[in-house]
Amino acid sequence: MAVYTKVPRPALEKLLSGYELGRLVSMHEILEGVENTNYLIVTSSGKYILTLYEKRVKREDLPFFIELMRHGALKGIPCPLPLADRNGEILQTLRERPAAIVRFLNGEMTTAITPAHCRQVGEALAHFHRATQDFEPRRANALSLAGWEKLVSACESRVDQVAPGLAEMITGELSYLKEHWQKAKVLPQGVIHADLFPDNVFFENDKLCGLIDFYFSCNDLLAYDLAVCVNSWCFEDEKTFSHDRMEALISGYESGRPLSEAEREALPLLLRGAALRFLLTRLYDKLNHPLGTMVKVKDPLEYRGKLLFFRNNSLTRIQAA
Amino acid sequence: MAVYTKVPRPALEKLLSGYELGRLVSMHEILEGVENTNYLIVTSSGKYILTLYEKRVKREDLPFFIELMRHGALKGIPCPLPLADRNGEILQTLRERPAAIVRFLNGEMTTAITPAHCRQVGEALAHFHRATQDFEPRRANALSLAGWEKLVSACESRVDQVAPGLAEMITGELSYLKEHWQKAKVLPQGVIHADLFPDNVFFENDKLCGLIDFYFSCNDLLAYDLAVCVNSWCFEDEKTFSHDRMEALISGYESGRPLSEAEREALPLLLRGAALRFLLTRLYDKLNHPLGTMVKVKDPLEYRGKLLFFRNNSLTRIQAA
Repeated sequence: MAVYTKVPRPALEKLLSGYELGRLVSMHEILEGVENTNYLIVTSSGKYILTLYEKRVKREDLPFFIELMRHGALKGIPCPLPLADRNGEILQTLRERPAAIVRFLNGEMTTAITPAHCRQVGEALAHFHRATQDFEPRRANALSLAGWEKLVSACESRVDQVAPGLAEMITGELSYLKEHWQKAKVLPQGVIHADLFPDNVFFENDKLCGLIDFYFSCNDLLAYDLAVCVNSWCFEDEKTFSHDRMEALISGYESGRPLSEAEREALPLLLRGAALRFLLTRLYDKLNHPLGTMVKVKDPLEYRGKLLFFRNNSLTRIQAA
Repeated sequence: MAVYTKVPRPALEKLLSGYELGRLVSMHEILEGVENTNYLIVTSSGKYILTLYEKRVKREDLPFFIELMRHGALKGIPCPLPLADRNGEILQTLRERPAAIVRFLNGEMTTAITPAHCRQVGEALAHFHRATQDFEPRRANALSLAGWEKLVSACESRVDQVAPGLAEMITGELSYLKEHWQKAKVLPQGVIHADLFPDNVFFENDKLCGLIDFYFSCNDLLAYDLAVCVNSWCFEDEKTFSHDRMEALISGYESGRPLSEAEREALPLLLRGAALRFLLTRLYDKLNHPLGTMVKVKDPLEYRGKLLFFRNNSLTRIQAA
């Protein structure tokens, strides 16, 4: 869960006095999310989300994320609209942390994923990729190949505490990806969400109505973003892959942005890369679990299972789709 | 009702192809509203409102309205966010009319006004006035004193067709206002909504969640905007004024922007002005009812009743509030 930083009511009232959002009615800690502190705030003018950016988000990256959400919202991407205070400023400081207020989005994450959800996620991802083609700020993906190598170095000696043989598997996979990733570099690049998991997509009556959490967004391969979604949306459990979901996801995506032949061919590689990325960050979090915070550590082994699946299955239906 | 202009589905699909809003799922005519053509459009990425600006809205005023909504939305005013197409353009042309797509707002107008609604309307109006203090574009109020005189000239000879004695009453009222309006000119000015009637405010579970229809917005006396709201929110019927509603409205407003003594003193005058404004425009519409359109003409005499009320009641409680 989140809420790392407690915000006393008077501190929030003082912050709100700089906005035109009315008087504070109530504030509620939001328990979902693992990166930042979030509050649902209700004022006399409506509902908003207050986010305090915790240390995992670099301050210098914040303008990229904020501008990206604003750019997306103004083009109709159903992402949170960051709000400006009376002086036109979006980024604030609260409890010694950077903070921002965004408009609240209705809807909630789905707990029972269907191919129909996946199709909408694919469509929304393609819209996001297209709507950000003219977005000028750039941010490198800190969690691509070079980032994975750093995570491996940081965890290496302790990996087998989590599961015997895991270190060897990871080292082998990293070598494989280092050898082949280069050839993916020629694929179309753009702004990617990079973390469009089911908990970052809201539905209302099974209609997609919100995309949130753009704090891993960066410039990278567009098809890699799709590979992240296949990893996070298309397994019923870590060993049970749903081809139906994947086909719906990819066909939804292609309704907005058809994949090139080269992207389609690279997908099996990108799927392994995405699985390794989440395996590594979860592993790192598990090994460096800060005692005393209430962060629920997500299971890294879920992504070992997914990685093994992608290693062992050629997913010929990707090529056929 | 509205929908003056039929938009064929292929024309809308062509328009949408310039946006990143996904494929068209359905389109529905919106029957509320009297000024413009509105469609609820549902695409694979969500719900939107398409507005075609009919002739009552001047093309040269559209940038003011569009920029105002964007400015308000970015500051947290719950108004529609105008969306840009792939090239960053908001204003389009469809069926030979200017057109724009805005994000859909949840909620609906209330059908049973309570003081609690009025209080929220007052608060929202004050926020709007404050949030637009730094809005630079300007637009004169075409429906202030000079506009009223023009409407009187345009209707004069036929006014008594609507109600015997009405012409004389209007002429007398106009003389009174011309004599006294001047002294109100020193009151604080700013951007006003100018038409914040109950059908332009949305609630969800009795919580205000949307302000719409900014197509009369202009620069004028802030307290005049409040007078428009008293006219439109605080009568149970044209002869039954609710002091409770007015007190709630004004106290909500003052929680965000306290009235000066001069504004409070001017309110009885502004209330008469606002009543005359709606009496005159409704009268004009009734006398110039375009045959064949399905516009429901609103009853001008409702505002004769309200005007008479304000002439006959000093509303001492305004001063005392």
